[in-house]
Amino acid sequence: MKLQIVMPMSNKPLNKFSYRIYYEDTDAGGVVYYANYLKFFERARTDFLRELGINQSQLLQEQSVCFVVRKCEIEYISPAKLDDMILVDVEIVNVSATTITMNQKIHRDNKMLSSLKVEIVCVDSKSFKPRRISEETKNLIVLKE
Amino acid sequence: MKLQIVMPMSNKPLNKFSYRIYYEDTDAGGVVYYANYLKFFERARTDFLRELGINQSQLLQEQSVCFVVRKCEIEYISPAKLDDMILVDVEIVNVSATTITMNQKIHRDNKMLSSLKVEIVCVDSKSFKPRRISEETKNLIVLKE
Amino acid sequence: MKLQIVMPMSNKPLNKFSYRIYYEDTDAGGVVYYANYLKFFERARTDFLRELGINQSQLLQEQSVCFVVRKCEIEYISPAKLDDMILVDVEIVNVSATTITMNQKIHRDNKMLSSLKVEIVCVDSKSFKPRRISEETKNLIVLKE
Amino acid sequence: MKLQIVMPMSNKPLNKFSYRIYYEDTDAGGVVYYANYLKFFERARTDFLRELGINQSQLLQEQSVCFVVRKCEIEYISPAKLDDMILVDVEIVNVSATTITMNQKIHRDNKMLSSLKVEIVCVDSKSFKPRRISEETKNLIVLKE
Repeated sequence: MKLQIVMPMSNKPLNKFSYRIYYEDTDAGGVVYYANYLKFFERARTDFLRELGINQSQLLQEQSVCFVVRKCEIEYISPAKLDDMILVDVEIVNVSATTITMNQKIHRDNKMLSSLKVEIVCVDSKSFKPRRISEETKNLIVLKE
Repeated sequence: MKLQIVMPMSNKPLNKFSYRIYYEDTDAGGVVYYANYLKFFERARTDFLRELGINQSQLLQEQSVCFVVRKCEIEYISPAKLDDMILVDVEIVNVSATTITMNQKIHRDNKMLSSLKVEIVCVDSKSFKPRRISEETKNLIVLKE
Repeated sequence: MKLQIVMPMSNKPLNKFSYRIYYEDTDAGGVVYYANYLKFFERARTDFLRELGINQSQLLQEQSVCFVVRKCEIEYISPAKLDDMILVDVEIVNVSATTITMNQKIHRDNKMLSSLKVEIVCVDSKSFKPRRISEETKNLIVLKE
Repeated sequence: MKLQIVMPMSNKPLNKFSYRIYYEDTDAGGVVYYANYLKFFERARTDFLRELGINQSQLLQEQSVCFVVRKCEIEYISPAKLDDMILVDVEIVNVSATTITMNQKIHRDNKMLSSLKVEIVCVDSKSFKPRRISEETKNLIVLKE
């Protein structure tokens, strides 16, 4: 469920997305399983790219490229729990020829639960070798930021 | 994301919920992994119960009961794919002392992708032995249906 | 981890496989999440087919076919828990032109935790339309059973 | 499946564990989904602690403590694929009053696929507040390393 943030004075793309925690996300410790935070971070990146007009299944089919994660630094500050609504944001911090670096955070209410610094690389979907990010994709990212 | 279905003439609870397919849900076959349909079915049951006023993490904490699945019959008709929005519905077909039987379907646009008949049982959260569904919970289910 | 069952008088292929329950498999109810039993059932089918000489990633690359699940009937009898070793078996009950029907069970020690009847269909990996199971594959299944 | 490494001259605990990649682990990109590497890393930590005599479900039930991840730095070097057997190792690099720091690597054959530096913290299983690692647990870790 996307949060309906009213932003009347700006056409900045939406970069905060909210998601519900279900049983599937939790583990026997009673909280969200540590690997599953990466799923929520990835949902937010996908939804953010979609907001910018970048559709990953189209990239895969039409250009035979996909974005893969090369590096993650995650901090777990406080656990998310069953039935929580969490808010996940995305901030692009750098774009190079092949790589996008982003900072992301997960909040519940005003409490930060987790943060992530992530590098994603544009690669050929068969060989997984780096490919330049297309100008079209780059323009969508840079213009709107 | 809940679909905003306008239902002005009715106070029937919402029983259709839509969810996005992300990379996490798919497998190397290019479509949603067969076990993951059960996650979407369960999200819809959870969201439906929440609509009725039944909160599962409260049940767990306050009454030490939870609903567990005893039986599933699933048919896979057509695969869901990356970036799809799917619509999952919930229909209660029977409520007994301890057990709720539901029929559920997943659609993309007007195409049915999967159907499920599921029996869920109210159990003690420690012993996993069946417990009567409380009158309060039952009233929430029966009154609104 | 495959269980080392000694079967000196027979060259029947191994059809029981054991797997460990980790945190990733459990949910906040303290037991294995209901969709995740399908993962263990599928691991056992994959390991069983591999025992028969059928490699699914080869089928995908060389013949552009894969096996997809059309139908499941699952019963959940008793929950599996963190750190359990479970034993999952596979029994082929029918093979038709395009479809294999199997019965599977999950045990912990001598207690049955879950049972599954599953139909898997051989399909084209692009169109997902049914394809005849190749004679080569069929011989591997039928000869050894 | 634990790799049967013969180590006749040493009683060093086993710190390398091998796991199979199944459909459940992959995504539509055709390789293992990025969050799922964390599952394999965690399986190896669990199996390693079990080798040392530390059972996490016992810790949870008897001492009401569990180990949670506070921080991860992951590098993804080359993708793991369907049907691969991967080897995951665990090396303890530091143990403080509440925190264990480990380095882990995933290999397929002799190729490194991923590396992880991870900090895990001993916490109370209800409050999630840090708790001193018990002397008993500490001895099991330090003596055998």
